[in-house]
Amino acid sequence: MSSEDKRTSPIGVFDSGIGGLTVYKALRAALPHEDFIYLGDTAHLPYGTKSPEAVLQYTVQAARELMENNIKLLVIACNTATAVALPSLPSLLEDLPCLGVIDPGAQAAAKTSITGRIAVLATEGTVKSGAYAAAIKHYRPDAHIQMLACNLLVALVEEGWSDGAEADAIISRYLSMLQPDFDVLVLGCTHFPLLASTIRKHLPASVQIIDSASTTAIAVETFLVRNDLLRVGTEVGKTSFYVTNAPERFERLAERFLGYDINVENREPTNSYAART
Amino acid sequence: MSSEDKRTSPIGVFDSGIGGLTVYKALRAALPHEDFIYLGDTAHLPYGTKSPEAVLQYTVQAARELMENNIKLLVIACNTATAVALPSLPSLLEDLPCLGVIDPGAQAAAKTSITGRIAVLATEGTVKSGAYAAAIKHYRPDAHIQMLACNLLVALVEEGWSDGAEADAIISRYLSMLQPDFDVLVLGCTHFPLLASTIRKHLPASVQIIDSASTTAIAVETFLVRNDLLRVGTEVGKTSFYVTNAPERFERLAERFLGYDINVENREPTNSYAART
Repeated sequence: MSSEDKRTSPIGVFDSGIGGLTVYKALRAALPHEDFIYLGDTAHLPYGTKSPEAVLQYTVQAARELMENNIKLLVIACNTATAVALPSLPSLLEDLPCLGVIDPGAQAAAKTSITGRIAVLATEGTVKSGAYAAAIKHYRPDAHIQMLACNLLVALVEEGWSDGAEADAIISRYLSMLQPDFDVLVLGCTHFPLLASTIRKHLPASVQIIDSASTTAIAVETFLVRNDLLRVGTEVGKTSFYVTNAPERFERLAERFLGYDINVENREPTNSYAART
Repeated sequence: MSSEDKRTSPIGVFDSGIGGLTVYKALRAALPHEDFIYLGDTAHLPYGTKSPEAVLQYTVQAARELMENNIKLLVIACNTATAVALPSLPSLLEDLPCLGVIDPGAQAAAKTSITGRIAVLATEGTVKSGAYAAAIKHYRPDAHIQMLACNLLVALVEEGWSDGAEADAIISRYLSMLQPDFDVLVLGCTHFPLLASTIRKHLPASVQIIDSASTTAIAVETFLVRNDLLRVGTEVGKTSFYVTNAPERFERLAERFLGYDINVENREPTNSYAART
């Protein structure tokens, strides 16, 4: 591929389901001229409760599907897949550049915190992986990190109940499980940006909230610029959305994440992917 | 197999995950001398958001696994799998007797209701299948049925928050979405019996609650007696628990469903099952 071809190639965005749309939304806002291909592996969601082996297998399968579209970069817009699969991906995928959602949020948290006391809300799978704590410690070895699994928050967002009495009751109970000495709270699940304003209400004003969607968009833009892969011009980029199962449910929920309707195609697994699905 | 062999054969209990343990618990209480083999298809849960084709495929795969243990009866302890797969199962499984969780609850609701106005709480997949409404109408053609998808309740139970302020807020919001003219409420998801006492608090005393776990146990006992398949004697039956992924999570949650700890084995898919997983 020539440099020009590479610049005009699409960016692949992968998630186990719909949560990655918060990352896509931030990417689309930051990178208006890029084409995107979003693949939600809805046949296998949620990843948060699956074994590491299963998550790696599904992620590699999905990445290979996206590579058939000559993507120039793969964004793993799923915290569990980032925690479990990202370290092994480049070697399994012919050195395709891959960026995940954990490192950008961890780096921002480490830089933003004054006291070094950081709390992370995530799903069970992400918490168990230990990946956030490791990434934050990489940037700030003295950090004191609390991780909390908040599985109900995913269902809450998908039900469309991001504010109201139920959201208040659930979020306040989760936050009460943390030692209240942190000054940075990381939303370590792609669903959670939709709860940011409700979470904000239950925190002291001194606590900064960092979400993995906007921090990942900045990291992707930086990567594209540094590697001369940014698509320039005036054309507005296109996006195709694919899921491995139940596109109509994805379409219905997508409006909650994006604020507008999209068309979603079912992408039946092909070849080697099909053989293992 | 002789009649004696058949009577001493185990009963297979299948669910997409852990919710079927409420059915197993009711079966174990009603049938103390039977052996059970429980298989939770945790590699593919939740079924409620999957396509009908995927649910049928997973259910047949799991049923074949259980049939390798010479089960005398298969209990589909999953509302979604019952709704979607049960009608096709006997023909796909060499006429193995199969009982689901919808018909017993529907029959009990039709008999119990005085006014014929019945509400059903279930997951999205069960609601969409229309199976509960069809089953209730079969027993009571004049019934007026409201179905409500309550996806948050599964996450609520799995978090262990079956009572308290969050459960009250969520349940009260769901119940407020129903026309309040029903006199029977069916808990049409295997997770929901754990919420029965909280749901009870938010209903008029005149409303009867029917759950699919205890009604299914009665249906299974009746089936065994009528077909001379009941295991008799004084020996206490044994149970083996298998899951297709992440047994440690299942073990941890199982205590919430059963009130005691169990050992769970990972059952890697074999042969034809593995080829499609």
